[in-house]
This record gives sequence, structure tokens and C-alpha cells, in this order.
Amino acid sequence: MVIDFIADYYNNIEHYPVLSQVKPGYLRHLLPRSAPLAAEPIEEIIKDIETHIIPGITHWQHPAHFAYFPCTASTAGILGELLTAGLNVVGFSWVASPAATELEAIVMDWLGELLNLPKPFLFSGNGGGVIMGTTCEALLATLVAARDRKLAEIGEGEIGIGKLVVYCSDQTHCAFAKAAKIVGIKQGNVRVVPASKTTSFGLCPDELVRAVRSDRDRGLVPLFLCATVGTTPTAAVDPLLPLCRVAREHDIWVHVDAAYAGAACVCPEFRHVIDGVEGADSFSLNAHKWFLTTLDCCCLWVKDPSALRKSLSTNPEYLRNQASDEGGVIDYKDWQVTLSRRFRCLKLWMVLRSNGVANLRNFLRSHVRMAEAFEKLVAEDARFEIVVPRRFSMVCFRMGDCVVVDDGVANLVNKKLLESINGSGRVFMTHAVAGGIYMLRLAVGATLTEARHVAEAWKVVREQADAMDVEGIVGC
Amino acid sequence: MVIDFIADYYNNIEHYPVLSQVKPGYLRHLLPRSAPLAAEPIEEIIKDIETHIIPGITHWQHPAHFAYFPCTASTAGILGELLTAGLNVVGFSWVASPAATELEAIVMDWLGELLNLPKPFLFSGNGGGVIMGTTCEALLATLVAARDRKLAEIGEGEIGIGKLVVYCSDQTHCAFAKAAKIVGIKQGNVRVVPASKTTSFGLCPDELVRAVRSDRDRGLVPLFLCATVGTTPTAAVDPLLPLCRVAREHDIWVHVDAAYAGAACVCPEFRHVIDGVEGADSFSLNAHKWFLTTLDCCCLWVKDPSALRKSLSTNPEYLRNQASDEGGVIDYKDWQVTLSRRFRCLKLWMVLRSNGVANLRNFLRSHVRMAEAFEKLVAEDARFEIVVPRRFSMVCFRMGDCVVVDDGVANLVNKKLLESINGSGRVFMTHAVAGGIYMLRLAVGATLTEARHVAEAWKVVREQADAMDVEGIVGC
Repeated sequence: MVIDFIADYYNNIEHYPVLSQVKPGYLRHLLPRSAPLAAEPIEEIIKDIETHIIPGITHWQHPAHFAYFPCTASTAGILGELLTAGLNVVGFSWVASPAATELEAIVMDWLGELLNLPKPFLFSGNGGGVIMGTTCEALLATLVAARDRKLAEIGEGEIGIGKLVVYCSDQTHCAFAKAAKIVGIKQGNVRVVPASKTTSFGLCPDELVRAVRSDRDRGLVPLFLCATVGTTPTAAVDPLLPLCRVAREHDIWVHVDAAYAGAACVCPEFRHVIDGVEGADSFSLNAHKWFLTTLDCCCLWVKDPSALRKSLSTNPEYLRNQASDEGGVIDYKDWQVTLSRRFRCLKLWMVLRSNGVANLRNFLRSHVRMAEAFEKLVAEDARFEIVVPRRFSMVCFRMGDCVVVDDGVANLVNKKLLESINGSGRVFMTHAVAGGIYMLRLAVGATLTEARHVAEAWKVVREQADAMDVEGIVGC
Repeated sequence: MVIDFIADYYNNIEHYPVLSQVKPGYLRHLLPRSAPLAAEPIEEIIKDIETHIIPGITHWQHPAHFAYFPCTASTAGILGELLTAGLNVVGFSWVASPAATELEAIVMDWLGELLNLPKPFLFSGNGGGVIMGTTCEALLATLVAARDRKLAEIGEGEIGIGKLVVYCSDQTHCAFAKAAKIVGIKQGNVRVVPASKTTSFGLCPDELVRAVRSDRDRGLVPLFLCATVGTTPTAAVDPLLPLCRVAREHDIWVHVDAAYAGAACVCPEFRHVIDGVEGADSFSLNAHKWFLTTLDCCCLWVKDPSALRKSLSTNPEYLRNQASDEGGVIDYKDWQVTLSRRFRCLKLWMVLRSNGVANLRNFLRSHVRMAEAFEKLVAEDARFEIVVPRRFSMVCFRMGDCVVVDDGVANLVNKKLLESINGSGRVFMTHAVAGGIYMLRLAVGATLTEARHVAEAWKVVREQADAMDVEGIVGC
């Protein structure tokens, strides 16, 4: 019955408004005030899901969902989740379910090889991979490992932690500053280097050098750089090769956050965006974003797993067991923030096998082609401009200079335009601001998206632009 | 096909050895060295799961799984996970899927009321609940909130964070010390108060007072107490009422970790174990442990959600939206460590409705009755002793004094006994050491466990004890 429900959901998904149209608080008065004393039949629950829950869903699997970054489901991913829930094992240590640990190590080597990650990131090269829930966890784990390694060097004195500085650009995902805060980095020591349109919003190595030198001159200790491949605002790519060179000189841990764009590196023609990753310490991507693996599945590779283990391992008596005591097995609890962990590698393994690498590459390429087609349509309309060169499957655009006089007004016009586009219920896009420019983002990536949906998205944009009273907005 | 596989799995589960019998590294040579280029049929993958994965599974859903704490699956839980994977929405903010946020708030109020949590923990009392993956995340989130609130008071000077002290007992789960380490509490400032057999391994309030006073005298700043209801080693209960009184006097944040035993509080007769919780700041339980909700589902309630938000909120431009800007909606990303979050409340809602409260209570009671029955069997055998009074569905026992001379030898004997019990493949138990005593733990809680499985477990224990060469062990 539930399988049928899901099948029907996907059959009907195009008829739903992508962005939920409910008002805040809609659900509370539709549901009882408390849990039922007696069991209710599943039919009743499914009916309520149809009537009360579905209207409150913003449909991430809708083919016209172009907002944020994609979060791709697929048949293999969903079945993998189902099996994970069915077996419901807790794989904190090897002994707690050997297959969960061993399959994860194998699949992380598979995927690492597909990405052409340098050997030192793979188990076969004395590094290794681990699956977490989200990039936030990957950032936390690597930050703590780097922090503790550094404190061991400089001494965990009273003021040790207060001296540590971390680096990112103003395009880096907010998860990084949050993770830094959580691990005790002082707010004033999160160095946010501005990125500009001249570098297509990539982090400029010279700016990093300047920041690091200035911090060292003040007696601070550079700790960690979060470089991004495919930033959230504009899918910008920080240049890993020169950044890692700077970092190495100053003994800075480099994490490469390729949450969205990392998946593209399984295609040889996109792999160059992570050239230089051999100089980094850790690398992560979210297979749930653009790799058909349902939420959550963040893949993290590190060159030095012992750094994670030194910070994150626990060995309470009640978890002791012969296999762990003898060494030679992976206890993933010691690689991550949490103890309990789901059998997440099962779905990733199923996605890889059930699709095959060739199809996965074609899937990613098809999204890039759709984004290219959209980019072309935008470029052909004199009212619009592409704000930054398209990267991967994301197009950043706005109604441009020829229509409105200055950026302040342009920002207002584009904000109104986005509101009316999303108000249509036919597509869902979100926005970004970079270098002071408000832009619309079309992020292609939903599993069901086809060329016609992207064409339709452009039609919606054009229609809403046609209907806009730009003069009126400019006037006020 | 996958549904059939899962149904067959549960039909056959009693025939599998509970504890996987594979050797480290078993899987790598069974699987190809890399991901396949071409798609493989699902039949092939399922065959591999049967042949290669299942033998490496330690079957947490096996009715004779008495190890660690239970991790309960159920039909409603599994179907909930399936729906979550099918919809695959990312509910970081309200707008990203209003139903995901609103249902979570409603269900957390439902469950909070069932537990008879004081009103200030519920949304209806200006507190509120949030679902995370694991207790580790709940501890991290509350520790950071408490830390930042305290640092705002005492000043985030260079040495502020180095002065903070956190408290627990030596029975507290290792996740707490790990979380404290992650948020930057100095290793020397994690105050581990020894709990003894005289208090049944509950944390003694007088000991806490002594520790806090001593720290204050040294100029340190007490920050946080993790009290446990149902500890991992022996299911001990820290006395919340006097502990919270001490904490209030010294302005210490109290978190109550009721990961396993919290579920029992939906039964009125067990609710007394959290008497005094009204003096705490936060309370968590894992619905995936003993409440039929598949991994992962940690329910956290806090009295002051603004403390979480002050520490954990982010507001990047690319996530800005009208509903959030206007306030009046919950953006759960600001209540937790991670940004992305699964639609976890769906399964909890389905478990509550599909079972009904009355059945859920009976389910928990049946496990407690089974543990009582086991306790009685142990007590009737002169070779054995119950080490601490049984709590909830967990029995801690060992071969006792009459058989062996001192605790050192007794520990060795019981370690051997556990090895032979688990080596049988018929049951799986784990051990704990508390107060220097090595004991066997029988934690009843798997969904399929019936009285006959517990009787069989005792039979296995007795047979292995019969076969043991105690004299030989004592001799060496």
C-alpha cells in the first residue's frame, strides 16, 4: 500500500505546486491534540498523509524543483533506504554488524576511485572514507581533528584554542562558520575572505596569503581552510592547487567541500575542477545532492584517519570486544561525531550497481546540458544577463543593466521577479547575493527533470518578466 | 521484491546466528574491486545481499538480541522510513517543507504529553521538541547552547572556555565526554563523579555538591550536568530531583539523557523515574531504542529553544525567505548542529498512530515482564547473582561469590562465560563493568522477543555455565 502510494506520488508529482502553498500553522488544527489511545489502520494514516501532509510538502522531487541544490531520490536509493530500515542494524563498531562497516569501506574506495581521488584518500592508500549524514558533520569531524592535532603541537594551554584561526571565503556555506563556532573557535577568528566577481567568486590565493600573514603577525595560529568546489550561491570553484600550496606552507588543514559539485567529478571532463586536491587533507561530497542517493549520505575521505580517531575515539568498557581490541578492524564510531550510525552505504552501493557508472555519468551530463540550454535562452533575451559563467548544472541570472539603472534597483526588480515566479507554483527557484548582486539561481538536478521542464521554467521566467511593472518598481 | 525480501528476512530471522560469525576482512574479496560500468539488475543485487551481506549482519532485530540496548524496528517504523525516502524532502526551514516542520512540532508535543513532561518543555508551554539523529547530537546542541549562554555572562575572554566544567558520573555514556571535548571543554574539566553500588550506581547529589564546590573554589565555572535515566552499564537512574536542586543553586544546565529508559515513562507506573525533570533544562530519549521507531530518531525537548537558536542559528542570504523573515515559523536548522535534516517525524507519527498508546504501553510492559522472569530464573540458581536491582527491561547478573573467591577471578569467569554464550550463536548479550564488577547484561527490547526467547536465553546461560571449567579458570 505504501509502495503504491509512493508510485502514485511520483506519477502525480507534476500536478502539485512545487512550492507548498500552505500558511504557517496550517497543520495543528487539522490533527488531533494528542496521540490516539487505540491503534489506527494504515489506510487512515495514508489518507491523512494525502489530505494533510502532501499539501504542506515542498516537492524536492518535482521535476520543476530548481531551488537550493538538488536532493535526488531514485528507485535504487529508496529501496536501499527500505532495506536499511528493514535490517535496522547499528554499525558503530565492526562487531556490531561487520557487513555494515566492510561494505562502507569498499564502497567508499569504489566512489573514491571513480572520482579519481588521489590514492592517499583511499583505504588502499592508507587513507579512507566514511559516510556521515551531512557536510556539517564532516566539517565538525575534520575541524576537531585538525584542532586537536594543532593543540597537541602548540600546547593546550589556557589560551591555545583562543589563538586558532580558520579561513573561508564569503561564498563558503554557513555550515563552516557554525561548525567552527561549535568546536570553540572564537567568532573573531573565523576569517572570511571576500571573493569578487573578477575571480568568478572563487577564493583568491593571494588574499588568503595576506590574511594568513596578517594573523601570524598578530601571534595567531592558522588552523583550517574550507575550500569549496561548487559554492552554494553561484557554484563557484575555489582554486585548489594554489590554495593548498599556501596552506601547506603554513601547516593549515585543507578541507574541500564539494557537497554539490563533487559528484560531477565522476565524469572525466569535469574532474579538473578538483585538480590540486592531492594537496588537501580531506574531501567531501553529498551523494544525496546530485548522485541519486536519498537523504542523508555525506561521503568524507581523509588522508589521515588517525587524526579523526585521535580526537573522536571512545573506548568504554561496554563497547569493548575482541575484534576491536585486536585492531585490524574499522570502528566507524571513532571516525565521526555520533556513536550510532545507520547502514547508509547500502543505498550508495545499490545506486552504483543499479545504475552503473556509465548511466550515472550520463545522468549528470544531461543536467549540465539542460543548464546550458537554459543559459542560452537567458543570453538570447536582451532583458537578462548571466551573472557569472554557468558552472555544472546551475545558472545564475538576473534582469540586467539594460532594463534598470543601478544594482540597488536591479536587486529589487529581481526579488520581485523571483516572488512572482515562485508564486506561480509552476517552478521553484531560489536566489543568491554575491558581490552585492541579487541573482536568481536555476539549479538543475532533480531526477525527473527533463529538457521540457527547463524550457517551461524559462517560459515562466519570461512570462513573469513580461508582466512585471519594472517602471513602477524603478519609480519607487 | 525488496518488500518480499524484508518479509522473508523476518520470517527466517530466528535461523540466523544473532552475532555475525564472519572474520575481519571477509567481504573485500567477495565483491568486485570497483563499481560496475553497466547497470546490474536488482535481482543480482538482492542475491548478493543474501549471499554476502546477510552473513556479515549482527541481527539487531533477532528476538534473541539482548546486547547493548535494543534498536527496535516495526512495520510502522519501516513504512515511515520508506515514505520519508520516497518524499525525500529536506526540512531545514519551514518553507523548505512546511509539513515536515509542523508535523515534527505536533508529534513532539504528543510524545512530550505522553511522557508527562512538564509543560515548559512543550511548544504549548513555550519550550519545544526537535528530532535529531542520535543522543550525541542532542548533547552537542545543548552543550553548545549552555556554553555560549555562560560565556555571554562571564565574558568570552581568552580563557573563558578553559574555565568551564561539566559533570557526569562514571556511569554516564561516553558520548557526553566526547561531546564536551568537541565543544572545546578542556579534558581536565570533564568532572567524572564515581557512582557506587551503594546507590545502585546512581549519581550521588552530595558527591556532585562536593565536586562543584571544589571547582568553584579553584576559580572554575560549573556549566553543565548530564544526568542519566537508565545508564548504559546497568540502567541506573540518577536522582533528578536533588541533582537539579544542586544544579539550580550553581546555575548549571541539566540535561537528562533518557536514551533507552525514557520510553518507559509513557507508562504511568514508570513515570516516577523522571520525577524532578521539571528542574532540568533539556531531556532526550531515543525513539529508535525502545519505541519501535527505526534508527535514527532522538527526541530532544528544551525549555528554552532560544538558547539553542542563539548558538546554532544561521541566516545566509541564500536561505532567506519571507516566512522566516516574518518570524512565527520554526526553522529547525537553528535548533540543531546540522543543516539538512530528514523527515524523521513521519515514522514517529506512524508508530504512535499505527500502534496506539495502549499497545505501546503493553509492548514496553511485556519486555519488563520478560526481564522480571529472567531475573527470577537467575535468582533461583545459586551459582548466579543479580548484581544490581533490575531496572526496566535490563538484568545485570554474574556467576557469583559462592562459586569463586574474589572479584578478580569472578570477572575472568564471567568474561569466559559471556564468550561461550555468544559463541553459541543462539543469543547475543554484552557486558558491563561497574564498581569493578564484570557483569553480563540481558537487555530485552527487540520487537519480536517473546517469553520463550528469554527462557531460551537462560537455558543457554545455564548450559554454558554447566560446561564451564570454573576450577580450571580459578586455578590459573
